[in-house]
Amino acid sequence: MKVGIIGGGAVGLLTAVNLTKGGHQVTVYVRREEQKHEINKGGVSLVPDYKNFPVRALLLEELRKEDIIMIAVKQYHLSDILPRLQSYLNIPLIFLQNGMGHLELLSPLKDSHQMLLGVLEYGALKHDDYTVEQTGKGICRIASLSELSATSNQTIHKLATSSYPINLEEDWYHMLAQKLVVNAVINPLTALFQVKNESLLENEHLLWLAEKLCQEACEVLGLSSGKSWEIVKRIVYQTKENYSSMCKDIEAGRRTEIEAISGYILKKTQCDLVYTSFAYRSIKALEMNAGGLKDD
Amino acid sequence: MKVGIIGGGAVGLLTAVNLTKGGHQVTVYVRREEQKHEINKGGVSLVPDYKNFPVRALLLEELRKEDIIMIAVKQYHLSDILPRLQSYLNIPLIFLQNGMGHLELLSPLKDSHQMLLGVLEYGALKHDDYTVEQTGKGICRIASLSELSATSNQTIHKLATSSYPINLEEDWYHMLAQKLVVNAVINPLTALFQVKNESLLENEHLLWLAEKLCQEACEVLGLSSGKSWEIVKRIVYQTKENYSSMCKDIEAGRRTEIEAISGYILKKTQCDLVYTSFAYRSIKALEMNAGGLKDD
Repeated sequence: MKVGIIGGGAVGLLTAVNLTKGGHQVTVYVRREEQKHEINKGGVSLVPDYKNFPVRALLLEELRKEDIIMIAVKQYHLSDILPRLQSYLNIPLIFLQNGMGHLELLSPLKDSHQMLLGVLEYGALKHDDYTVEQTGKGICRIASLSELSATSNQTIHKLATSSYPINLEEDWYHMLAQKLVVNAVINPLTALFQVKNESLLENEHLLWLAEKLCQEACEVLGLSSGKSWEIVKRIVYQTKENYSSMCKDIEAGRRTEIEAISGYILKKTQCDLVYTSFAYRSIKALEMNAGGLKDD
Repeated sequence: MKVGIIGGGAVGLLTAVNLTKGGHQVTVYVRREEQKHEINKGGVSLVPDYKNFPVRALLLEELRKEDIIMIAVKQYHLSDILPRLQSYLNIPLIFLQNGMGHLELLSPLKDSHQMLLGVLEYGALKHDDYTVEQTGKGICRIASLSELSATSNQTIHKLATSSYPINLEEDWYHMLAQKLVVNAVINPLTALFQVKNESLLENEHLLWLAEKLCQEACEVLGLSSGKSWEIVKRIVYQTKENYSSMCKDIEAGRRTEIEAISGYILKKTQCDLVYTSFAYRSIKALEMNAGGLKDD
């Protein structure tokens, strides 16, 4: 099956490799000529063994007919991408963004397009323009945002292989909200204390704070706090060796995704979410102490 | 006037220098023969000019008749010191401990002894056994815990000079509680973010967190939150170049005074003090991450 992946970042490259492993013919659509060239020279290389996978690269403006398109750009680049997808009425479009802020952007298209949302449990780490690493374990969860045709349904089912296990979820809101809770717990705490994910399980005080953050996020997003807490702990365990993206952003003095994560939760309620506020303010304080913020 | 100071730590040495400057004849009572020897050799040296002040040193067991005794040991050493003070019924004893945990220890003596409590606004930093630095500005506040005789009152008034400005406070509880609020705001935040005191004024997010911690502490200790917040900001400004003791303890992997500060406030209430809990847990988490804790 021909799969197009828009975005040559960590998630785009890792998804390209995992789908290529599964026998799909993958094209990554990138912004820069240089990255296109590097990938076409030798494919995408997967850490730790640096085995190369035959992924093709094209520029975004060269977007062609694909059986399925996955959109793996950051949330704030989505508005540039959406106009290019206008004519793709009948093929599944899978959006792989963090947070929930992109739902408003996608909503006007959901009656006309075959749209799905995906979230990854594991992390992806880009080493250079054609080298990527999967950090932690887990699957990709996918839920449809719009009513899918029978053909689209079949296409989605063909996407899954042992190299790219997929769970199809009934309820996209629940799926995204659940992922947001996980991020709202793991990211600010690991960033504030500059620790690996596993510290949240091993340090009783961090575990205590993690549970408080989980409870507050669940309250706002309408999830069961007990169930979500079990899920958070499972994800932390599956990614215990990871440094979260926010932890690395703070270490590198980069802007974090705190606004899209804890900031989003705080905006969704009139209640005083004190633990979430403390975490949010802490990350903002660290960003501010780092001085001028670089986007990545 | 003959002043005895028990304790050769940062506060003891700095107080010795400031009182010697004011013309008093000061003896510091220390635990170790080595420190006694060093101080008797050349007095106590004050950073930044390393000028020496003629302070005498004796061992604790050599305690003599003094006109006034100041007790400058850590709270947890107080129980060793108190029995030595039993016979000093008629001279003022000034206790210079942090926190409020020592009040229970002192309480049985307050009807028989001339007891006062003191708190310092500035910091004291010990460089070695006979070298000390004053960090930040401010005065010493003193309040009496017991009814003072006319003689004791005169003695206290003679203690103050321009080198050792004293404010006599009416209400010892208010004075100690106010100092505790200051510590409960400055110490955990500067330790968590590893910043100088001034960051609390310069970083709007830390300022926001500082005010929340101040409000919670005031609620428990029965102080006016608005007035206390002005005092906290003034003290932060006066000590803006300081790294707090807790900040330095965390940096060095030492045990902090978090139990005596935020821990004390949490224990004093049934209410859910969320910001204080977050700060308390954070410092406990950092202590735990540092592994085995060294006492200083």
